[in-house]
Amino acid sequence: MQPFEIHILGCGSALPTRKHLPTCQVVDIRGKLLMIDCGEGAQLSWRKTGLNWQHITHVLLSHSHGDHVFGLPGLISTMGLLGRTSPLFIHGPAQLRPFIDFILSHFCNDLGYKVHFEVVDTTIHALIFEDRSLEVWSLPLRHRLPCCGYLIKEKPGLPHIRRQMIDFYGVPTWALNRIKAGDDWQLADGTVIPHERLTTPADPIRSYAYCSDTMPNDELVPMLKDVDLLYHEATYADSESTLANKYGHSTARQAATIAKAAGARRLLLGHFSSRYDDENILLAEAKRIFPETTLAYEGLRITP
Amino acid sequence: MQPFEIHILGCGSALPTRKHLPTCQVVDIRGKLLMIDCGEGAQLSWRKTGLNWQHITHVLLSHSHGDHVFGLPGLISTMGLLGRTSPLFIHGPAQLRPFIDFILSHFCNDLGYKVHFEVVDTTIHALIFEDRSLEVWSLPLRHRLPCCGYLIKEKPGLPHIRRQMIDFYGVPTWALNRIKAGDDWQLADGTVIPHERLTTPADPIRSYAYCSDTMPNDELVPMLKDVDLLYHEATYADSESTLANKYGHSTARQAATIAKAAGARRLLLGHFSSRYDDENILLAEAKRIFPETTLAYEGLRITP
Repeated sequence: MQPFEIHILGCGSALPTRKHLPTCQVVDIRGKLLMIDCGEGAQLSWRKTGLNWQHITHVLLSHSHGDHVFGLPGLISTMGLLGRTSPLFIHGPAQLRPFIDFILSHFCNDLGYKVHFEVVDTTIHALIFEDRSLEVWSLPLRHRLPCCGYLIKEKPGLPHIRRQMIDFYGVPTWALNRIKAGDDWQLADGTVIPHERLTTPADPIRSYAYCSDTMPNDELVPMLKDVDLLYHEATYADSESTLANKYGHSTARQAATIAKAAGARRLLLGHFSSRYDDENILLAEAKRIFPETTLAYEGLRITP
Repeated sequence: MQPFEIHILGCGSALPTRKHLPTCQVVDIRGKLLMIDCGEGAQLSWRKTGLNWQHITHVLLSHSHGDHVFGLPGLISTMGLLGRTSPLFIHGPAQLRPFIDFILSHFCNDLGYKVHFEVVDTTIHALIFEDRSLEVWSLPLRHRLPCCGYLIKEKPGLPHIRRQMIDFYGVPTWALNRIKAGDDWQLADGTVIPHERLTTPADPIRSYAYCSDTMPNDELVPMLKDVDLLYHEATYADSESTLANKYGHSTARQAATIAKAAGARRLLLGHFSSRYDDENILLAEAKRIFPETTLAYEGLRITP
């Protein structure tokens, strides 16, 4: 299986606590690093991941609240100091452009690489970018200001060659890519060896969805259908559902209800309000509706 | 003695390491908290100090490099979320005004307190502000852009009443403040009890100076005369003096030379380049010239 791992750098909400940092995640997928949100301290806790700064190709931002973007100035500057030359693509709502322009014009005059900001339409579910192995889609969220989540999907891979069958039929190396691509193989005597006999199926494709910050949004259900891992904010417990509604957030139960309706395989809760010393109340409330739920924490590494 | 303590929140340089955070300090003086510089993570490591956010009255900024100010957006926002109502005074070079204006206009629309930015002339040694018990002075530094340090001085206090003498002579309470202020006391029989007999001397006044970032600047010597504690940047060891000069920084030896020339009581080194896993080389080079030198570290609490 190709690497596909999410590193949680921060899963607190606006008020930092001794336990939690503001929101930041890194998705390590097939050697590409995608950062999702960039709260203050992102570049500081980055070091603990052992990942290589220069492998960050894209930063995906959800919205323009400080606890999701205040780590960006430090991140951009530090990658410059470390001699980055490859361009960095930042995606997010249009409201973030002035912030990024300001950082670049006031603090990054001698930056050795280009920063490209690409506006995400927070009202639709659209393909943001893709390469040979992955697709990144936007997810419309409902918060106090324009906000979007992201869906990261592997593309179907090729089947695996069955080495012993290849040897047995004496298939030459030059033919292997064509067989991987679906061809059968014809022996000298005309016998046709079907593709299926020469290969084992491709790895199953995996997907990860990030939904924070948002009120429960049923519109997401079809977009999240069968997602392997869903990170959904659960700022509050049920007892605070009025606050959740007032501030455009979700309760753990509401997050679990979305995960269940979408048929997600697993749910990861985050963006915890600082009022909870023990987040197991959130976990319990979610598990009643969706048993495959876990709590995020700083340092967590999880595979979809 | 009245409290006067410096908390080191960060003493690294531009590149954060596993060991060091960007520059930030808090001076706790007689119940007032003055923050000096505000690198990324300031509000995160703040929590470890156990100090009360709302007691920060002033933030003193040295210059507009990111590793000294990227913690400011988070600090300002968080104090708002925590319900601050008392004004916050930020002092620093004029180049910082656009940054502070941007934070306030883009991220702090519903801030419950006023932020006042007061420009510091980085070319002169001038009184920035004072109250009944302390004075804060600017210190002109020499860096790649306008930069200033700060000198924090206690004002002379009043002598202490000698309780047993007051009782012995039956001095009434109403007279005590006048005696503290310097009066003698006359008994009913006309005998005059001199002020000195009724009091013990006031506490000695203490001072703290912050000099970062800067090249060695002899102009500082008279301004730092007899300072109790001098924090001076020591980004590099002697072997890197060319780099120090190129980037507008000091070596440990240069910091010690300033401390010695000024007759400082103690020297605290900081703003360490990320290249030094072991900063004892900096300590050793400084001690050769100024023995009363120590290394700063995150979590250090030190009294002038």
